Amino acid sequence: MKNPGGEKRKVEVLEGVFDANEMIARENQELLQKNKACMVNIMASPGAGKTNLIMRTLESIGQRFSCAVVEGDIAGKVDAEKIAGDGFPAIQINTGGSCHLEAKQVKSALERLEMDKLDLIFVENVGNLVCPAEFSLGEDLKVMILSVAEGDDKPLKYPLMFRESDVLIINKMDLLGFTDFELEKVKPLVRGMNPSIRMFEISCREGTGVEEWAKYLEDVITKKGESGGA
Amino acid sequence: MKNPGGEKRKVEVLEGVFDANEMIARENQELLQKNKACMVNIMASPGAGKTNLIMRTLESIGQRFSCAVVEGDIAGKVDAEKIAGDGFPAIQINTGGSCHLEAKQVKSALERLEMDKLDLIFVENVGNLVCPAEFSLGEDLKVMILSVAEGDDKPLKYPLMFRESDVLIINKMDLLGFTDFELEKVKPLVRGMNPSIRMFEISCREGTGVEEWAKYLEDVITKKGESGGA
Repeated sequence: MKNPGGEKRKVEVLEGVFDANEMIARENQELLQKNKACMVNIMASPGAGKTNLIMRTLESIGQRFSCAVVEGDIAGKVDAEKIAGDGFPAIQINTGGSCHLEAKQVKSALERLEMDKLDLIFVENVGNLVCPAEFSLGEDLKVMILSVAEGDDKPLKYPLMFRESDVLIINKMDLLGFTDFELEKVKPLVRGMNPSIRMFEISCREGTGVEEWAKYLEDVITKKGESGGA
Repeated sequence: MKNPGGEKRKVEVLEGVFDANEMIARENQELLQKNKACMVNIMASPGAGKTNLIMRTLESIGQRFSCAVVEGDIAGKVDAEKIAGDGFPAIQINTGGSCHLEAKQVKSALERLEMDKLDLIFVENVGNLVCPAEFSLGEDLKVMILSVAEGDDKPLKYPLMFRESDVLIINKMDLLGFTDFELEKVKPLVRGMNPSIRMFEISCREGTGVEEWAKYLEDVITKKGESGGA
C-alpha cells in the first residue's frame, strides 16, 4: 500500500543521536528546571559516607530549603529508612544487581515526588567508584566522596570519577591521623586531573567542615531558584 | 548443495550452554589444576586493603611458596609496581573502564606467567563490591575484604558479594575504636547469609591477625599441591 496522502516523504535525519540514558537525563533536567529544583548526585565507594553526608547536610540546610532524597542501592532500604526517620521524603530505588543508577530510574523517582514544592533533591548513587561516573542523571551537581580510610592513590585508579565530578568531599577527616592518607598528595593530583573541581574536607562523624560545604550548596540552590523556571 | 558426504547429519544438542565467561573460567581452572597451582580472587571496595592484604600475605608465605600477582585496575599500575618492588612476578591488567575482571583477561595473564613453577596466584580484582561477584575467573577461592571504616551495613547493601565469597577478611581492625562498626552485628548477619564463609579479623597496617589467615591459605595451597595435577 502506498503512502495514503500520496505525498513524497522526507527522510528524517537525526542530527544528534544521543543514547537512551542521555535523552532521559535531559528530560530530568527539564523537569528540574521547570520546578526550579536542584538535583545533586552523590557518588562514592561503599562506606565512604554518602548517607551521612546527606544527613549532615540536611541537618544544616533542611529547615531553610525543601529537600527530598532518592536512594539507590542494589538491595535493601536501610538508608531510605534513616532519611525518612528524619522526616524528609525518601524514595528507594533498588537496582536489583546493577552497579549504578540510570536516568530512567531517577525519572521514575522524580515523578513520585512533589516536585513543585522541592528546592533540593539528593540522589545517593550505588556505592561504586566506576560506573556511576558514566551515567548522567540530569543532575545539577556531581559530588563524589573520598574517605581518607580509602587511601590517597584512588585518583590514579578511578580517574573518570575524579574528572567528571564538580565537587570532591574528602570525608572521615577524623581518621586522618590513623591512616597513611596524605592530603598534600591527593589535592594537587586531583586538581591536575580536574582544574575546576571544588574540594571540601569534612568529618561527617564529628560534623567538622560541613558548614563550608553547606554554604556552597546553598548558593547553588539559590541560583537555581532565581533562574528562569516554569 | 547437499551434504558432500551424503550421510544424514546428527543434530548437535548442547547439553549445558554456559556463557562465554564461564567457559573460559573452566579453562583457567583446568590450567591451574594441571599445574597444581592455586588462584585466589581478592575482591573489595576501593581502598579496603586488597593490595595490602596481598603484600602482608606474601610477607608471611612468600618464602615457602612460589607466588605471583595479577593486578586488575581501570587504569594505572601503582599496585603492580608495589608487588614487583617486593620481587614477586606481577602482571597488570587495565580494564580500560570496565568495573570488574573477566575470565578471559585473567587467562591472558596466566599465559604470561611460568605456571609450572607457581603455587599461588593472587588476582586483585577491580575495587567494586558489585560486579566482580558475578564473574567467575576459575579461582580456587573467592576472598572479599570489608574494611571496618566502610560500616557494618554493607552485607545488607551488597548481598551477592557476601553470599558468593568463601572468605571474608574484616580489615582495618586498628580503626575499630574510631568508628561505629559493630563486629557483633556484622558477623552473625554474614553467617546468616553464607553459613560456610570463613571470617578473619585483620589489621594489614599493624600486621595483626594475618598469621591465622595465612595459615588457612597455606592449607588450601598444600591440598591443591597434593591433588591430581598433570
